[in-house]
Amino acid sequence: MRMQIVVIGANAAGAKAASKAKRINPKADVTLIDRGGFISYGACGIPYYISDTVADVKDLMSTPVGVVRDAGFFKKVKGVTVKTGTEVTGIDREAKVVNLFETATAEKTSLEYDRLILATGSSPFIPKICNFDLQNILTVKSIEDAELLKNCAISGNTACIVGGGLIGLETAEALQQKGMKVTVIEMQEQLLPGILDRELAFLVEKQLRQQGVRVMTGCRVTGFTGKSAVEKVLIGEQELPADLVVLAPGVTPNVSLARAAGIDIGITGAIAVDARQCTNDPYIYACGDCCETTHLITGKKVHIPLGSTANKQGRVAGINAAGGEATFSGVIGTSILRVFNINAGKTGLSETEARANGFDIETVLSPAHDKAHFFPGAKPIVLKLIAEKLTGRILGLQAVGEGVVDKRLDAAATAITFHATADQLSQIDLAYAPPYSAAMDNLIVAADILKNKLAGHARGISPHEVKRKCDEEDDFILLDVRSPAEHGEIGIEGAKLIPLGMLREKLGELPRDKEIIAFCKVSLRGYEAQKILDAAGFENTKFMDGGILAWPYPLRGANIATKQ
Amino acid sequence: MRMQIVVIGANAAGAKAASKAKRINPKADVTLIDRGGFISYGACGIPYYISDTVADVKDLMSTPVGVVRDAGFFKKVKGVTVKTGTEVTGIDREAKVVNLFETATAEKTSLEYDRLILATGSSPFIPKICNFDLQNILTVKSIEDAELLKNCAISGNTACIVGGGLIGLETAEALQQKGMKVTVIEMQEQLLPGILDRELAFLVEKQLRQQGVRVMTGCRVTGFTGKSAVEKVLIGEQELPADLVVLAPGVTPNVSLARAAGIDIGITGAIAVDARQCTNDPYIYACGDCCETTHLITGKKVHIPLGSTANKQGRVAGINAAGGEATFSGVIGTSILRVFNINAGKTGLSETEARANGFDIETVLSPAHDKAHFFPGAKPIVLKLIAEKLTGRILGLQAVGEGVVDKRLDAAATAITFHATADQLSQIDLAYAPPYSAAMDNLIVAADILKNKLAGHARGISPHEVKRKCDEEDDFILLDVRSPAEHGEIGIEGAKLIPLGMLREKLGELPRDKEIIAFCKVSLRGYEAQKILDAAGFENTKFMDGGILAWPYPLRGANIATKQ
Repeated sequence: MRMQIVVIGANAAGAKAASKAKRINPKADVTLIDRGGFISYGACGIPYYISDTVADVKDLMSTPVGVVRDAGFFKKVKGVTVKTGTEVTGIDREAKVVNLFETATAEKTSLEYDRLILATGSSPFIPKICNFDLQNILTVKSIEDAELLKNCAISGNTACIVGGGLIGLETAEALQQKGMKVTVIEMQEQLLPGILDRELAFLVEKQLRQQGVRVMTGCRVTGFTGKSAVEKVLIGEQELPADLVVLAPGVTPNVSLARAAGIDIGITGAIAVDARQCTNDPYIYACGDCCETTHLITGKKVHIPLGSTANKQGRVAGINAAGGEATFSGVIGTSILRVFNINAGKTGLSETEARANGFDIETVLSPAHDKAHFFPGAKPIVLKLIAEKLTGRILGLQAVGEGVVDKRLDAAATAITFHATADQLSQIDLAYAPPYSAAMDNLIVAADILKNKLAGHARGISPHEVKRKCDEEDDFILLDVRSPAEHGEIGIEGAKLIPLGMLREKLGELPRDKEIIAFCKVSLRGYEAQKILDAAGFENTKFMDGGILAWPYPLRGANIATKQ
Repeated sequence: MRMQIVVIGANAAGAKAASKAKRINPKADVTLIDRGGFISYGACGIPYYISDTVADVKDLMSTPVGVVRDAGFFKKVKGVTVKTGTEVTGIDREAKVVNLFETATAEKTSLEYDRLILATGSSPFIPKICNFDLQNILTVKSIEDAELLKNCAISGNTACIVGGGLIGLETAEALQQKGMKVTVIEMQEQLLPGILDRELAFLVEKQLRQQGVRVMTGCRVTGFTGKSAVEKVLIGEQELPADLVVLAPGVTPNVSLARAAGIDIGITGAIAVDARQCTNDPYIYACGDCCETTHLITGKKVHIPLGSTANKQGRVAGINAAGGEATFSGVIGTSILRVFNINAGKTGLSETEARANGFDIETVLSPAHDKAHFFPGAKPIVLKLIAEKLTGRILGLQAVGEGVVDKRLDAAATAITFHATADQLSQIDLAYAPPYSAAMDNLIVAADILKNKLAGHARGISPHEVKRKCDEEDDFILLDVRSPAEHGEIGIEGAKLIPLGMLREKLGELPRDKEIIAFCKVSLRGYEAQKILDAAGFENTKFMDGGILAWPYPLRGANIATKQ
């Protein structure tokens, strides 16, 4: 008899696994089962469908040449049999049989397997709070969700997004673009928790506020009220009117089928797999959002569901199930998001994560233009680069701004994967021409500053720490070394102005017994000022990491909504 | 006496070296000498100034906050003394003295040094052909050149660019944008020789022709005619009218000063340095376009002058000259260019270079959209990825297209630096969201295909080889597996159509005794077809690398100018 390979779940990981298994072993029968009606769609594209950025929902389910990836496509092109509308009700591992329930006919059948691949995905985590089942309380996961959301996205109406993570913010933008009044409610004290450190998350938050989105951090939704449809969101005593609520508080892996069959569930709550994507049953593999993976920096198990990882794991599971040999090593937590005109992402560990994992670290905040500053369209981005102090090994990069951040993240992700040090990163032969970067790419500059810090030449202090010192009225000099014109336009309250070009002449104006913290627009002149003061014998000098551009607090002269 | 550090040449490398030396050793006197009047300018920005993309020439000489980097700036901000209009006429290594000639006053002076840094740059290589000194025969190097070029760029006039390298093509675009009729003349049989392999260079050439630029490859300019100004360019017997000629046949390092002083010149003709950027004289360093460096893949010495490398080397030379300790390891030949709406670049070795260096290699051509195909603004790019056969180690990436290529080059540059294999590259946790890439980034897809090829699953054949078989009327089947609609719109002459979805049913239409080469738009369906044919017992099957999108030859139905 021909080898029977059964794949449960026909989205990114499952569709990839099935196709790859058939290519590796054309003599096998490969069956792809899904309980839904739509298969192999780009779930990550749903917010763009809601906002009409993607016009036709079919575009999310098509190949790049416009062929819809339906059951017929899989049969004809991939040689894979697809059963949609079919629920897998159980796995009999002894008999190597999956039990099926066909929704349309209510028929119960079964299917034998030699190798089984679980690609059951994840589901939005629905907090079981008061009235969470009212109408117009939706999630963002399936094509069906997308259609419902699109119908509810009525201009002038009010939407509340519960959760300020990637999906929450993408959906906030989509609904805002449809003319809704949008509020994002996040339980943590910052947006994008687990992705960005606080000072970078504040830059994203500032942007959302500028775009008219209301942002409420540190707020826990306790329930909803309404007759049949939701009318109000409850945050303790507080009530917010809402015509539409989107629950986006993260996802949870779909493991009930695996758990019922005695498949090991890992510490993260997702299915445990080895590097071959094999579960504790040698005939059963798992891939995609339903399984956990290894974080390559910490060595810990993590559940970070992403379409990119799902495809890689699906390929490996498909090869191994079909009799080949492949491994997936793990992830480093790379995430990215575009929200309005801001790009924001990270790779590796954030400062918070690095410290939580016991690393002794140095960090740098480095804002600069994303291309040669004289090139039209150059836009600012802020990088935060993190290295282990002792070894100089790069542990993480965060990047936020209107300019290009993804390429810096991709290069850093590669560097981190290969245990690059700050010195190695600073010497990589990156592609340079004015339309793409400055002669020294932002990543090179950040690595150089990190080297200066690791060597003790540069002494930085975070904007957060400076703000604390201001608030606590510490006795120190906050020294603005920008030009009088820049200083006049925008500034930090209480700062003393001595333009960098005048500093060598005006050293007499500065007290030698006080801490001096220099800053400029991006911190490069601030660093130069620190070096000039050092050379002149001042003993307690620093520069403020990232300068004005990375300062997430209110600025004198800023006519834009900022964090209070 | 204070330590005297003298730097000759005040552009990228020299300015960086001087500033860094002063920061490292604030007690040193640092003097920066330049024979020109302008210092520390972005020479790479000159084509954009010619085209008015950059409006003010001062922008090329300013910091990102708009301060002109002149002598006053260096004195006040950097603490560095600048002498412009000053020619260094000789180096007395015994006495540790440089001899100076001040152009304005014709005064001869001298300056002692403890450490000397040579940053003398490079000059356009001027072929000594007939009448090369006529008026309006210009080069693209200095600010003075830029002004001359701008004056000569008269709409309706005719310009000939001699040299189809990076600077030649950037200048071609600039002059075309000013309304000139532009011809690019390249001695080699392709544009961008030494950067792109021929099939990718053809994609760039196609684009130039579409934009109305005349491209002549395999043509050697033998001289010029004209009274005072140039009127005609001679290519053997052929004469081309020209109101302006731009010589861009590459650059040659400025080493006469070093050579006269007995400094070692390397095999490349540039100044030889060690990893500390030190010459054979322990008191003399060199950095930037005047010196050679090590290619990290071949281990050979190379002279690849770029602003990015100059800055890295300048930093290292500055630190070492000032008494610190730093090294620069080398480059991997990364280059990039935007010309009209095409981005084109490479990192590591091209196929030509890899073979010339004795590597046994596998290659893949992989065209795809640069972001999720359903995302508005997604544009095609073609990647060519090259790996060593035995080890799978990635040796090079080339990328050409309207979409984003720089981030793929930067990630690949990083991977190559760390000796990544195709398998490792295919698993890197790159940043994914629909505005940035498909779930499987182009680089991951290319690495996966490369793995399939290295494992023998996928058997590709280059478009070049297929064209040769067509031209020589080899007896084989060229199998188009696209849809009838795609086939009807554009195609390769002589190809047989069986859409992939019909292939399993129509196997009977194909002869079993002939070679079958399948293709589609990008080669993924072509590869699927090869696998289907393999599984059906066909024994001589291949797919054509890169499909229609990477086919650089004429296409049936294409209404665009293509290579004849």
